[in-house]
Amino acid sequence: MANLPFSEATIRQHRRIAETTPPKECDPKVEALVNDLIGRVADKWTMIILEVLHEHGELRFTQLARRVSGISQKMLTQTLRQMERDGMVTRTVHAVVPPRVEYRLTELGCTLGAAFCGVWIWAEDNLARVEEARARFDGRDN
Amino acid sequence: MANLPFSEATIRQHRRIAETTPPKECDPKVEALVNDLIGRVADKWTMIILEVLHEHGELRFTQLARRVSGISQKMLTQTLRQMERDGMVTRTVHAVVPPRVEYRLTELGCTLGAAFCGVWIWAEDNLARVEEARARFDGRDN
Repeated sequence: MANLPFSEATIRQHRRIAETTPPKECDPKVEALVNDLIGRVADKWTMIILEVLHEHGELRFTQLARRVSGISQKMLTQTLRQMERDGMVTRTVHAVVPPRVEYRLTELGCTLGAAFCGVWIWAEDNLARVEEARARFDGRDN
Repeated sequence: MANLPFSEATIRQHRRIAETTPPKECDPKVEALVNDLIGRVADKWTMIILEVLHEHGELRFTQLARRVSGISQKMLTQTLRQMERDGMVTRTVHAVVPPRVEYRLTELGCTLGAAFCGVWIWAEDNLARVEEARARFDGRDN
């Protein structure tokens, strides 16, 4: 847990929310819009880029590419562009030779990163349980 | 070891420290596993199915299909199977004619649903801001 860029207070807060927040009923129009937005942000690469930028502040494209292991250059470009369009990152081009392009989270991106905090904590806490479940499932006669 | 000028107690103490002090850098293996798990669960359909089952308790396949609007039958089958493999849902086949198959969240699925709660709340709260950002981006000369 020491590895995640979240304070103990944040982690405690998210654990408390996870334990106490009941599911809510919702207006269908808002629900459709929320589902659409969730479809955009509930994406592996978006989540990992949010976490990396949350931890490192501002990064150049090549620095991001190194830290988001396994991502292709095309997918990184595409995900950053979508995140910029959604207002989550700013892209700053510095007029030097060669041009330096830097990415940084906006306040909106920071709040989404914080919201995903609960999911990272869940993943760390439940890794072993998911692996056990998979082993059981794969060992069954499906 | 007997040649070294350290008492057994000192050596034991240092071994204990080495065993218990958390690594400063993230263990790459744990990080890779967490990223892999995030890649599995940070998926639009997984998130929506978690929320629908969280709200309704137990549902039959056809009931789920109706409530997860926009999902194809193939994608629903595939996502439910992955969620079953990951230990998040149970699939119960009732021996009636025609067979009735019902899906329900496990305790693990419930905790993931709760962890995603912060993201749903974020999406509800920030819908307008994301739409504004998109309009700005699309109106720009990209």
